[in-house]
Formats: sequence, C-alpha cells, structure tokens
Amino acid sequence: MKKIYMEEALKEANKALKIDEVPIGAIIVRDNVIIGRGHNLKESLNDPTMHAEIIAIKDACKNLGTWRLTDCDMYVTIEPCVMCAGAIYQARIKNLIIGSPDEKAGGVISLYNILFDERLNHQVKVYLGIMKMECSNLMKSFFSELRKRK
Amino acid sequence: MKKIYMEEALKEANKALKIDEVPIGAIIVRDNVIIGRGHNLKESLNDPTMHAEIIAIKDACKNLGTWRLTDCDMYVTIEPCVMCAGAIYQARIKNLIIGSPDEKAGGVISLYNILFDERLNHQVKVYLGIMKMECSNLMKSFFSELRKRK
Repeated sequence: MKKIYMEEALKEANKALKIDEVPIGAIIVRDNVIIGRGHNLKESLNDPTMHAEIIAIKDACKNLGTWRLTDCDMYVTIEPCVMCAGAIYQARIKNLIIGSPDEKAGGVISLYNILFDERLNHQVKVYLGIMKMECSNLMKSFFSELRKRK
Repeated sequence: MKKIYMEEALKEANKALKIDEVPIGAIIVRDNVIIGRGHNLKESLNDPTMHAEIIAIKDACKNLGTWRLTDCDMYVTIEPCVMCAGAIYQARIKNLIIGSPDEKAGGVISLYNILFDERLNHQVKVYLGIMKMECSNLMKSFFSELRKRK
C-alpha cells in the first residue's frame, strides 16, 4: 500500500473534475507497475457503467490480456458503488485501497460488504482512509460548485 | 411483460452458448421496440465486466444517446449478479424480467435485494420466472457439457 498510487488516483479524479464529471479516479497496480487507470466518464460517454473503477479494470485487462486481475491492487479515491464492488470481485482483484467512504451509496463498507461476502467466489482485502481528506475534499468542492450553479 | 422478449433474450443466450460462453442473454425494450441486446462475452473479450446485461445497457444507451434508461424494461435469462444489478439501477431501468434465479451469485433476489433497496437513489420492479425452464436448462446443459470435457 503506497501513497504515491493514491496520488495517481487523485490525478485521475482531477481529470474528471476538469470535464465536469463527479471527481473519482482509480489506478490498478501489479508488481509496483501501474497497469490500469481510469476516471469517471459517465456523462461524457453517456454510459452509466463508465465509472472510474470499471474503466481502470477494462484498461488493466486489455494491457494484461486476461480478465483475471489476480495479484493486482486497486487504489480508488472514493468507496466503490454496488456495481463497481461487483466488478472488483468479478475481476479477482487482490487488495482494494479506498480514500474516502461513500456513506450514501458505497457497496464495500457503507451500505453493503460485498467484498467480504464468503458466499461469493472471491473476496478482496480492503484498506480505508489513505489520503481521505484530499479525496473527500475534491468531492465536496465539486458538489458545492454544482449547487452554486443551480 | 411479453414472452416474445424473453424469447429474444434466449436467442442472445444461445449466441453465447455457440462460442463457449456461459449462456446468458439480455434484451432492453422501450415502447415495444428492442433498443438494446447483449450476450455474455467475458471470455471472448477478456473483460470481466462484459456480462449480457452490461452489454445490453451500453447498446441501449448508445442507441438512445443517453445514460438514463427510464421507461425501459430489461429481459434477462438468468438473475443478474451484484455487478449487473448495480448497473441496472445506475441505468434507471424501470422493470426487470428474470427467467431463472441464480442461487449462488444473484444480486436481485438470491444473495442480495439490491433493486428494492430504498437507501439507493433508484428502485426497479422485478418479475421472476418467465420461461424459467428454458432459461435454466440452457445453463444446466452448458455446465454439464463443461464437466464432461474436463
């Protein structure tokens, strides 16, 4: 677990912010190499599945030539939703490092505990709170700006 | 809710079967027109997110030019997993018609009840059991054939 990778995930989140997307970023790392990255592109691509985590998973799978991301870690700025938590276990990711929780919609620790569910065929180790303030503040400023505009 | 659309979803599932994918198919309908379709392509595309439901959602969004599939119904041969149940509520789908339940991994009625969760920002009406035997038998024959080969 390294802070430099959460900094990279924050760089991705900032890319989303610049194009008026909810600022969430994700990085996938294997053997100290970044093999996948993504930021939220739901509005830009008109596709509700294009969250940062799913884009990063698709990127990593393409780069590795397999859908099995065994021995890969994901760093994500905000707790994944139910869909993305599902995608993370489907991809067999080993460790998930989360910046800030999402109390309203999070599928990992807030509303559900999908990645710890032993009825499913894969479990993921979860670490929470790396650069929490930076990750959370980016979201807060985005939504505060959005409210001002309305 | 019309049987002809589940027959179309079964046609999609059969396309998956022919290329050795787990045979699951999905159709999205709005105003009696099929606007999205998909079958499982996880192995073919080396992408763990390429389940029938997500492919159908992406197809429908592309055709409608929006990520909001309000007033759209999905027909799917087998109960969606957690990831796909998440994608279905993210896409704001109105009604979900399921052929057969997935007791091991289903996110709608079997392991979780994600689409009825009032803490989330959208709920989906769910109908279960349309052409259940046909949908379930396709899966059974696929896995029985798989075991024979091993």
